Amino acid sequence: MEYDFYTYICEASLKLKTMNPSTICAISTPSGTGGIAVIRISGEQAFRITDQIFHPHKQDAPVENQSPYTLSYGQIHRNNEVLDEVVASVFRAPHSFTGENTVEITCHGSPYIQQEILKLLIDKGCELARPGEFTQRAFLNGKMDLSQAEAVADVIASSSAAAHRLAMNQMRGGFSRELQQLRSQLLDFVSLIELELDFSEEDVEFADRTRLSDLATGIKNVLSKLVNSFSVGNVLKNGIPVVIVGETNAGKSTLLNLLLNDDKAIVSDIHGTTRDAIEDVISIRGITFRFIDTAGIRSTGDEVEKIGINRTFQKIDQASIVIWMIDTTHFNKEIEYIADKIIPKTKHKKLILVFNKIDKISPEEQAILEEEFLPHVPAERIYLSAKYKQNTERLEQVLLKAANLPEINENDIIVTNLRHYEALNKALESIRRVEKGLHNNLSGDFIAQDIRECMHYLGEITGEISTDEVLGNIFRNFCIGK
Amino acid sequence: MEYDFYTYICEASLKLKTMNPSTICAISTPSGTGGIAVIRISGEQAFRITDQIFHPHKQDAPVENQSPYTLSYGQIHRNNEVLDEVVASVFRAPHSFTGENTVEITCHGSPYIQQEILKLLIDKGCELARPGEFTQRAFLNGKMDLSQAEAVADVIASSSAAAHRLAMNQMRGGFSRELQQLRSQLLDFVSLIELELDFSEEDVEFADRTRLSDLATGIKNVLSKLVNSFSVGNVLKNGIPVVIVGETNAGKSTLLNLLLNDDKAIVSDIHGTTRDAIEDVISIRGITFRFIDTAGIRSTGDEVEKIGINRTFQKIDQASIVIWMIDTTHFNKEIEYIADKIIPKTKHKKLILVFNKIDKISPEEQAILEEEFLPHVPAERIYLSAKYKQNTERLEQVLLKAANLPEINENDIIVTNLRHYEALNKALESIRRVEKGLHNNLSGDFIAQDIRECMHYLGEITGEISTDEVLGNIFRNFCIGK
Repeated sequence: MEYDFYTYICEASLKLKTMNPSTICAISTPSGTGGIAVIRISGEQAFRITDQIFHPHKQDAPVENQSPYTLSYGQIHRNNEVLDEVVASVFRAPHSFTGENTVEITCHGSPYIQQEILKLLIDKGCELARPGEFTQRAFLNGKMDLSQAEAVADVIASSSAAAHRLAMNQMRGGFSRELQQLRSQLLDFVSLIELELDFSEEDVEFADRTRLSDLATGIKNVLSKLVNSFSVGNVLKNGIPVVIVGETNAGKSTLLNLLLNDDKAIVSDIHGTTRDAIEDVISIRGITFRFIDTAGIRSTGDEVEKIGINRTFQKIDQASIVIWMIDTTHFNKEIEYIADKIIPKTKHKKLILVFNKIDKISPEEQAILEEEFLPHVPAERIYLSAKYKQNTERLEQVLLKAANLPEINENDIIVTNLRHYEALNKALESIRRVEKGLHNNLSGDFIAQDIRECMHYLGEITGEISTDEVLGNIFRNFCIGK
Repeated sequence: MEYDFYTYICEASLKLKTMNPSTICAISTPSGTGGIAVIRISGEQAFRITDQIFHPHKQDAPVENQSPYTLSYGQIHRNNEVLDEVVASVFRAPHSFTGENTVEITCHGSPYIQQEILKLLIDKGCELARPGEFTQRAFLNGKMDLSQAEAVADVIASSSAAAHRLAMNQMRGGFSRELQQLRSQLLDFVSLIELELDFSEEDVEFADRTRLSDLATGIKNVLSKLVNSFSVGNVLKNGIPVVIVGETNAGKSTLLNLLLNDDKAIVSDIHGTTRDAIEDVISIRGITFRFIDTAGIRSTGDEVEKIGINRTFQKIDQASIVIWMIDTTHFNKEIEYIADKIIPKTKHKKLILVFNKIDKISPEEQAILEEEFLPHVPAERIYLSAKYKQNTERLEQVLLKAANLPEINENDIIVTNLRHYEALNKALESIRRVEKGLHNNLSGDFIAQDIRECMHYLGEITGEISTDEVLGNIFRNFCIGK
């Protein structure tokens, strides 16, 4: 079997890597200054190396002799001088995150102390951990499968309730169990067919072809559902792309600030660190909206500015929701120009017309607007004052409605990862061939081949089948210390 | 005794505060995204509150029943949903940092999860900790004196080996022991004198006045040494102020980048977070140099620019070391202008003449410079190429020499805190009055009064005497979570 040999090579290469790994260390808490920081050390020599710099208080044993899951208070020494007073937490293999001996040193949160402790550990034989190396070791040591390991990074990166829920479910093995079930069904399936092949000369049919067909269809439906969940999963993970267009002074930034409100701290945090700086990421009732930055539109002779404005219209293509902000105090010819540009582009998108500055117009003027402004364009219309926070709650409701997301429960399996999506698509193709093959009464060995291929792609997701290159790509995007 | 009543009031007010304190929580690790983060909970209800959201894995007990100094693996639940998988560390009063029951929850380092766990804890009855409140509680519960508590913030803020060493020694009680010794000497002293007062009608002199004089002089000398150490302590803690002046293209920023070299990561970290953004802080062999930013000097008719250049010359007053960078390829009249401005200002400072771009001049030209450039000005002279890193190590040596700092040993007591310096100065004044009083055969009750005053000021440092206002001022500058 072609795949078996491939699997064997992959597994052997991974085993070789896990056989004699180095002991690694890294600062696992966010970088910078804080009350405390945690340095994690993992590997066979974790205890021996720690004991060379850690001096427990009189009643405590060296970490080498310390019971698992205990804390010990002591000092880090450097050249017979106290560098810091710390707490060492001991986890013994295999009962740790990595599955290896692990020490976590909680030190004072000064960048100086953190760096100096790292330097000491490296002097004593530790290697600096690569990004995601602790999680990679957890995977290599069988503490989690590859899809769970990937979810660790997603859990850390997720900034909305929905994205967090999906990542947490995946990390806790929800997706893995689903895939495990599929694999075991496929294994039964292939066994039946291969048994048949062994006895093929005797023209025995062990497996009822109709039952086999039902089995294939069942698997196809599950795979299909998973593949289809990606569009929701991707949106939940990366946010729903929203573009706000409008004239320069229509009040776009006031509106964005308004939407930020309570979540400001969290959002600005993410904004500066992990996201593209020119996008505003805002979480509304646990759903992430990604506001794509655009230039304000105004009539201009300036060629450079014209290019900017054209780009704004192009950005509508990236969005699934388009907010058109209209300054109700300032109607002019440009409104028509904008309408001509926007409306044809929003046919398959949700268009929201936000009439701003209603505090400055009369109820009669508003009534005229409601009746006469582009009456045939299918769009949600909101009349608000961003500055005085009038009617702004409704905007949140309308955005959530426009997002059109299904209710997600804790145990729903939603695919959020492009790598998984691609593998599932290939698995789906294989099972479709199986289904078709059964229908066309194809020979059992062809069918078996396709079932094995389907299993192979599922194995790629969980990491039963993986290469150094794949692992390298996955863990490269982790932060150091995880 | 006036001071005794005051002390009593202070102590009573502190006791009241410690009697029924709330349970507090905060994120103790640096803010932002990382592998893991730690949330600390401290107070009488720490276990009860944690157990409402923390669900240990099957074999583990709730934290309420958990042994001290142990770790327990489990989940944080929110509305029957798993928010995160965490490790809870349990410290039982009084054997914790604060002296109270304490739980440290190690969660995934996502800002979202950190915030959500905090919210849950607050929902269940925790209060958000004020800056430094954990350390303040450690002080109020007698785990450390006030000078040690202050050192906790210094330990976290210190970015050079020397500043770190001083802060660590103070945190570990080096300074407190010195003060304790002084106080016990003063107490013996005052007892002797008061005993004498009790028997004053009988005209008995219990205390030998010469011995008392010697005692006062001894205490004065120790206080004096501590007061004098502040100039060094302040420089070590805040850095040695250095100003670089010179023409616009003399190579100032190349030189700064050069000095940054290995420590870049640490230094830039501090730079952005805790220091004035316009200053470069560079650590050379464990000593911090604070480079005060100045505008380049050039001949200009522009009035605004002239003001900037005058400011540059004024900044020399703030520096203790002045580096004058001279472009050896570009001598002109402005050199004379700069010389006239700088040299009178550097009489009580260290002046270093840095002749840059020596790669572009011949050895003969350099020889002429060495002989003829301002030969009578007392200054260190260095000939280097900042761009090609020629002779730049010598600059570090010259800077260290110009800093003129004594060798600091781990156990040296150096005062680094302005509050301590002021209190020590007052204590010193009091003991001087004692010395003088003894010399002038002043009545015992006057002398006793001065000794008690001296003790009072020392008590202010260790916090035996303190007010809410003083405490408020001290802990306000801490980071949240410590």
